[in-house]
Amino acid sequence: MFNFKNDYSEGCHPQILEALSRTNLEQTVGYGLDEHCSNAAALIKKAIDCKSADVHFLVGGTQTNLTAISAFLRPHQCVLAAATGHVNVHETGAIEATGHKVVTRPTPDGKLTAALVQEMVNEHTDEHMVQPGIVYLSQSTELGTVYTKWELEAIHACCKENGLLLYVDGARLACALTSEACDMKLTDLPLLCDAFYIGGTKNGMLFGEALVIVNDALKEDFRFLIKQRGGMLAKGRLLGLQFEEQFRNGLYLELGRHANAMAQRLQEGLVAKGYPLLQHSPTNQVFPILTPEQYQLFSSFVLFENWANLFDGRKAIRLVTSWATKQETVDTFLNQL
Amino acid sequence: MFNFKNDYSEGCHPQILEALSRTNLEQTVGYGLDEHCSNAAALIKKAIDCKSADVHFLVGGTQTNLTAISAFLRPHQCVLAAATGHVNVHETGAIEATGHKVVTRPTPDGKLTAALVQEMVNEHTDEHMVQPGIVYLSQSTELGTVYTKWELEAIHACCKENGLLLYVDGARLACALTSEACDMKLTDLPLLCDAFYIGGTKNGMLFGEALVIVNDALKEDFRFLIKQRGGMLAKGRLLGLQFEEQFRNGLYLELGRHANAMAQRLQEGLVAKGYPLLQHSPTNQVFPILTPEQYQLFSSFVLFENWANLFDGRKAIRLVTSWATKQETVDTFLNQL
Amino acid sequence: MFNFKNDYSEGCHPQILEALSRTNLEQTVGYGLDEHCSNAAALIKKAIDCKSADVHFLVGGTQTNLTAISAFLRPHQCVLAAATGHVNVHETGAIEATGHKVVTRPTPDGKLTAALVQEMVNEHTDEHMVQPGIVYLSQSTELGTVYTKWELEAIHACCKENGLLLYVDGARLACALTSEACDMKLTDLPLLCDAFYIGGTKNGMLFGEALVIVNDALKEDFRFLIKQRGGMLAKGRLLGLQFEEQFRNGLYLELGRHANAMAQRLQEGLVAKGYPLLQHSPTNQVFPILTPEQYQLFSSFVLFENWANLFDGRKAIRLVTSWATKQETVDTFLNQL
Amino acid sequence: MFNFKNDYSEGCHPQILEALSRTNLEQTVGYGLDEHCSNAAALIKKAIDCKSADVHFLVGGTQTNLTAISAFLRPHQCVLAAATGHVNVHETGAIEATGHKVVTRPTPDGKLTAALVQEMVNEHTDEHMVQPGIVYLSQSTELGTVYTKWELEAIHACCKENGLLLYVDGARLACALTSEACDMKLTDLPLLCDAFYIGGTKNGMLFGEALVIVNDALKEDFRFLIKQRGGMLAKGRLLGLQFEEQFRNGLYLELGRHANAMAQRLQEGLVAKGYPLLQHSPTNQVFPILTPEQYQLFSSFVLFENWANLFDGRKAIRLVTSWATKQETVDTFLNQL
Repeated sequence: MFNFKNDYSEGCHPQILEALSRTNLEQTVGYGLDEHCSNAAALIKKAIDCKSADVHFLVGGTQTNLTAISAFLRPHQCVLAAATGHVNVHETGAIEATGHKVVTRPTPDGKLTAALVQEMVNEHTDEHMVQPGIVYLSQSTELGTVYTKWELEAIHACCKENGLLLYVDGARLACALTSEACDMKLTDLPLLCDAFYIGGTKNGMLFGEALVIVNDALKEDFRFLIKQRGGMLAKGRLLGLQFEEQFRNGLYLELGRHANAMAQRLQEGLVAKGYPLLQHSPTNQVFPILTPEQYQLFSSFVLFENWANLFDGRKAIRLVTSWATKQETVDTFLNQL
Repeated sequence: MFNFKNDYSEGCHPQILEALSRTNLEQTVGYGLDEHCSNAAALIKKAIDCKSADVHFLVGGTQTNLTAISAFLRPHQCVLAAATGHVNVHETGAIEATGHKVVTRPTPDGKLTAALVQEMVNEHTDEHMVQPGIVYLSQSTELGTVYTKWELEAIHACCKENGLLLYVDGARLACALTSEACDMKLTDLPLLCDAFYIGGTKNGMLFGEALVIVNDALKEDFRFLIKQRGGMLAKGRLLGLQFEEQFRNGLYLELGRHANAMAQRLQEGLVAKGYPLLQHSPTNQVFPILTPEQYQLFSSFVLFENWANLFDGRKAIRLVTSWATKQETVDTFLNQL
Repeated sequence: MFNFKNDYSEGCHPQILEALSRTNLEQTVGYGLDEHCSNAAALIKKAIDCKSADVHFLVGGTQTNLTAISAFLRPHQCVLAAATGHVNVHETGAIEATGHKVVTRPTPDGKLTAALVQEMVNEHTDEHMVQPGIVYLSQSTELGTVYTKWELEAIHACCKENGLLLYVDGARLACALTSEACDMKLTDLPLLCDAFYIGGTKNGMLFGEALVIVNDALKEDFRFLIKQRGGMLAKGRLLGLQFEEQFRNGLYLELGRHANAMAQRLQEGLVAKGYPLLQHSPTNQVFPILTPEQYQLFSSFVLFENWANLFDGRKAIRLVTSWATKQETVDTFLNQL
Repeated sequence: MFNFKNDYSEGCHPQILEALSRTNLEQTVGYGLDEHCSNAAALIKKAIDCKSADVHFLVGGTQTNLTAISAFLRPHQCVLAAATGHVNVHETGAIEATGHKVVTRPTPDGKLTAALVQEMVNEHTDEHMVQPGIVYLSQSTELGTVYTKWELEAIHACCKENGLLLYVDGARLACALTSEACDMKLTDLPLLCDAFYIGGTKNGMLFGEALVIVNDALKEDFRFLIKQRGGMLAKGRLLGLQFEEQFRNGLYLELGRHANAMAQRLQEGLVAKGYPLLQHSPTNQVFPILTPEQYQLFSSFVLFENWANLFDGRKAIRLVTSWATKQETVDTFLNQL
């Protein structure tokens, strides 16, 4: 059985596993106040070229999103997002559970635009409505697409003009930044966002996301919020040492680049075999459209995620590659197809 | 420098590390729906002799407490706890952040009693007050003390009589159950509580707590709540496989027994040297009282936690042992003292 | 200056004012436990022909909606509503502030349908998404339209089939039930909804909404929730005695009927003068579409609410009549136009 | 049957009722944006001698407390209060329902002190605990006692030193300020608090509290919060015109003075008859201690509130007077006793 279900099917990259083993009996203080965490934070601040940023390490993406957004907003403020945004659909109302509405617009490619943001702002005119407070977007998006630097700059400018914060969910940031469709670098993020996170779970770590707070006004007392929301890991050094490995020698982007290469090979192979795509994806998620017969065939020998039921009875599915996907697996899969 | 600061200073027990390495490249489904998790749940249900229980794996104690308690209570219901209870003092108001008050009583030894519970119930008489909904207690307590079976039965009976749920925080359950002061077994817990958790973080795991829901009325849709609160680990198998190791061949209680033995050796040594105790502890936390001079001495060669400032200028400190504490370390420490 | 801005511009109907004066120096117990409240509840239960219902009196609509919905749902459950629904747009995220998502569908006439409800249910497939818990609809809607009995029965059946609760916001229930477009009676409501409220604020009272809980499973401890959300009026009898007047001798529906008659006269007059309507309304809200010149004219001599900016530069406005609107006022307004 | 159960047993003062009748058919805009509200706010700002304050009108005390405190605090911050504080005991956990812990100290007379505040601050040392954010106190307290200006200045200074906000619940402010035990004036409040409310419900109004926000940092977007918590009254002018009457010609303090005079006459009468007091009260609440026989006697001809069960079997009860209490009623009651 092939498995393209997601990018977190395996444990972690061997280099990270080795670091876990090597440091296992070290004695450190808890809660992310250890040297591995401070070292990892320093490496990240260097990689993004932003010395003044605060870096916090959390275990997972939903936890990072809900902790950050609820810390940044006042109670009457809402999140603006694409209708397909992870916080809107796939986090069981985690943002609302902290008291905040998520206001959305449908977008064909999973990407917000400055125009859509402005439209949502314009609709919120008085105190009987929630107040737009923060724009949430994912780089890459839930549909595998990426924002170009120019697109993010436009959204950034729109946020500035309307007094909004900009937050980037980087669960798959490594794949976004190493995609051929994306002209952004790590160093662009602090210039464009108030906060963002660098995703580790989907990029070869056992778990872990590095939340980077750039905007000084959002930094105060943030560790209180991590603790209150249940996200402060007792053995915090596990987060630090994994990110040390990611940013010590370029592993982070390397793993994203590999995942992309495997996905592109897969996507091209599917297109070559005549499969239409729901959305061309330049990153590590691929969305072929299958007839019922094809769907049955796929189900018989590969694990994947259902994505959407089309009106004509066909289905779009999602195939995901990762740091752990081997080229021969992709090739064998395509051959067997 | 000696380190008795807590029981989560190291990584994990070698047997667990080995399991992580061995399974690293296995491909599994995410979110705790894999075979390691189902196998670990089966082992736990066997160990507690309760086939009908639901077992959920979460990363940390605060997250487990807040997710469980907020799932079990209606909005107007409160938690009853000892004033020293972890949910009252050391979780940054995590329970209140989900909307629920924690009502407390001071207790010298960190233990609730049926009488205290009844007293709190009696004070809440109408709809202008919160409604007692659940009793929270820790086994062992934050002061290292333990509840005997008889004591827990009395609280259990009081809960039944007043329509209250009973929840046991087992962050240090292994140490409680292997303490000479405790006559309870794992199999007693499902008979006395509506829900409890078996703590892994403080007993040799990288992280992880196993929440056991015994009361059928509390089981429905619990996974939604885990996800909503940010506690659903993508690579959930990491939790399952660690608990597999703990319950496969008795490691869980063995590690608790070792931590206790080290603490008792330490406690006896301190008493022999004339140090008074804030509270005699039968488990893995020791609370000597130090004069300012002694405090300075200790600070110079051992890491510990400050616990309380006494009125006469002395301080109580906390020394903690763990699965990783070596007997020679305790002996050397006592000798150097 | 004419004033068609809303249906709560004046104080209260003279009969209600008289009752307030007459009873002013009576001494009663507080918090709605007095005889006026129990008498009003009895009158309402008789009017809706449902002896088993619980009736609670609250001050305003947003408070009633948020208290009821947050009491009825578990934390992971959401509200299903029309995109124009009052809880979605005009309550500053009050529902989300209690932790619950509002999931919506756009509807041209402000009305949900069973098909739309089913569509939203079908999209929520697993624990990574919120769980549909309750359907919210307004009778009449924010666009002045009404549900027929058949339409509500279809939604009711869809709710039953999917295990959903059905809640009706009756802020303008008197106008809905007395509209020629509506074939429902007060006695139909308990047969079709789990809970609903009978709006007083917009129907001649100083303030006050009567929440009717029909479903036994939703009744327990509801007064705790009213108090917790800040909605328990100390001098609760003010709510009771106003509703006594409304339901003592048929005033409630009579006031709605009058408001409708005035609005229909206004709507017909506008149509006769060639004004197109955004939506034909059979109740007390009228939505003419104005050119910029007409808009300027209207603004010069009548107070109204802006409703929507059309793509061609025209604007839809809202004119509202009430129990206090006089026929001669409508006629004079139309003549001056 | 005599009735000393509370100070909100009747409707409203005749002057206020007259104003309601006189203005009943005026047409005004809704939500407190009318001229009565702006006029009342101006009168209050003049009475407290603070032109820069923001004044908001809400319906009741619990709603005012929860809306203000949740608007002023960040999620990890807590309220510091006396254990008897209204927000701690008698609001069904309303503050916790907005996410914030209430940390308390027992006090014999219901009054906080600077020392108690400092003690609570000192105990909260790190991010594993909630962060003290605001001090809550009632003037007069739940036990009828009052803070002198010097006492409030000491607490104010302690707050400043520790970066805490100070909030005064003035549900019975009129009685406090007109008590012989109190040397404070309305004009002292803006100098000592960040926010406070002037209670109307318990001082002759149908309902209504005037929240005064002095601290500029707390003013932004406050109307959003009122709406979100369900506290924005559609016919807001009802609040404005009642407060106009209160502050137009000194009625507010006059009514408090009368209530105090009646209570002092009652208290002195009881003491003269040999009844001990739980707490001498200089305001409108009186707390005699009754033997079981006396309790039975009282129960037979007067309505009152139970307050506390003493250890020796006696009970403390609460008798309350108000603007509506007549001297002859007090005298007849004492005579019949």
